[in-house]
Amino acid sequence: MYISFRDQNLKCMYISINNELVLKEGANISVSDLSIQRGYGIFDFLKTLNNKPIFIQDYFDRFYHSAKEMNLEVNLDRTQLYEAILKLITKNNIPNSGIKIILTGGFSDDGYTMVKPNLIIIQTPLNISEALAEKGLNLVSYNHQRQIPHVKTIDYLQAIRLQKFVRESNADDLLYHNNGKVRECPRANFFIITDNEIITAKNEILNGITRKKILGLNIPNYTFAERDFTLDELYNAKEAFISSSTKNAFPVNQVDEKLIGDGKNSITKLINDKLLALIELDQNS
Amino acid sequence: MYISFRDQNLKCMYISINNELVLKEGANISVSDLSIQRGYGIFDFLKTLNNKPIFIQDYFDRFYHSAKEMNLEVNLDRTQLYEAILKLITKNNIPNSGIKIILTGGFSDDGYTMVKPNLIIIQTPLNISEALAEKGLNLVSYNHQRQIPHVKTIDYLQAIRLQKFVRESNADDLLYHNNGKVRECPRANFFIITDNEIITAKNEILNGITRKKILGLNIPNYTFAERDFTLDELYNAKEAFISSSTKNAFPVNQVDEKLIGDGKNSITKLINDKLLALIELDQNS
Repeated sequence: MYISFRDQNLKCMYISINNELVLKEGANISVSDLSIQRGYGIFDFLKTLNNKPIFIQDYFDRFYHSAKEMNLEVNLDRTQLYEAILKLITKNNIPNSGIKIILTGGFSDDGYTMVKPNLIIIQTPLNISEALAEKGLNLVSYNHQRQIPHVKTIDYLQAIRLQKFVRESNADDLLYHNNGKVRECPRANFFIITDNEIITAKNEILNGITRKKILGLNIPNYTFAERDFTLDELYNAKEAFISSSTKNAFPVNQVDEKLIGDGKNSITKLINDKLLALIELDQNS
Repeated sequence: MYISFRDQNLKCMYISINNELVLKEGANISVSDLSIQRGYGIFDFLKTLNNKPIFIQDYFDRFYHSAKEMNLEVNLDRTQLYEAILKLITKNNIPNSGIKIILTGGFSDDGYTMVKPNLIIIQTPLNISEALAEKGLNLVSYNHQRQIPHVKTIDYLQAIRLQKFVRESNADDLLYHNNGKVRECPRANFFIITDNEIITAKNEILNGITRKKILGLNIPNYTFAERDFTLDELYNAKEAFISSSTKNAFPVNQVDEKLIGDGKNSITKLINDKLLALIELDQNS
């Protein structure tokens, strides 16, 4: 089971703005919002399977943490936010979906001073397919350290700017490194597998929920390590994969035009299977 | 003559969105815009005096440069953009104003892929007063290097996040440094004056238009230098000032609770006078 984005124009949908449901066509906010004026906002993104939000408390932990770090007040407590999400899910009736919760700096008269945040919840259909994992991702590395990395801000300046570079590199996505130390992809954490270790960066990254779930798995003959590793270690790894809410554990077969391992990704597949079992457990809880 | 912001709610105003004039109350854009989804956009900011945009070709140079660097296409050429601004000026009739031109990543169906940018032009009244310069600014330094610093992006994550820190420091604004090397304020360039030099950072800063105009002035007994300088050099400077489109050359009397120089700011005042003469020349050209 792999999940990927589908175009969100499939059907008439509702979006929640400050806990009011509005049709997507009318889901507009004033250009005085600090997201537009100053790129100021945080967000989080989780999925629903059969209308059940998966690992929701983990996502809430991170969302409220991000808000606090950016001095943004969330107008709803966890129970109210959960109800707002359920209201949207019920209205839209898209069983398998992505839920994006955005909290912006709010409408600012002077375009600079923070006032009252705006909360926007957007649901988009997700397509579940088994086939995608057969072809691993092809990444291209780029020297960039995200600012305020442990907070899920809306800052994707480099990722969007470099979409052209990714296309021109015939790659699927970016892999950020900080002067040779591998960090993460714009929307995913990153792991390598050696003979007996499954390694992921510890510092200056976003603490992904899927990353956390993977680090809690039991993989026979392998230990998990959270530490810096270099691009050279990556090029010589047995396997590499990304982790994200939509892609779960997804193989990476090529980085900077170098093939990684033998392309069989057997450990990545085992990790993904165990992750899917965890997700199913949460779905049925 | 010093200029400062006033609340923009003074009167019924129009905003230009994709070259259509709409009332401020209805100036909304879809939450699918990449500024809201991914903090993706650039902008520029210039002033009008007696309805004349000042140094407009310099601002256009920077705006189109920023757009190019961020792979954003401007739908209007320079003549058309100038006409769009004049249309807004004529409609609003605010002789002394700030003009903000924002170019966002546009409406994106998947919330990630760049499509067709949105162009938003906002005019806000500016208040001109002579009095403000008597009290110099009080700044607090902060170790932060802006990403893509030579491009005027909408990324003000640190500046907005640190508004609380600035208040708690009883300061007026931030001064960014990169591990001790002074850079700039969030919305202004920064200069120090020694016995015979007027120094401003050269690297990893936004190339301000007011900064450029100042560097072209003739100040007897002083030479201009563009180079790195440290916080310690700043603390021991004779004078310090910021430069911006709204504040011109504006004295800084205190940084990190240390008084800078004797507080008379005589060279800064000379610089500001010469700058104002340049502005008047452009206004009457």
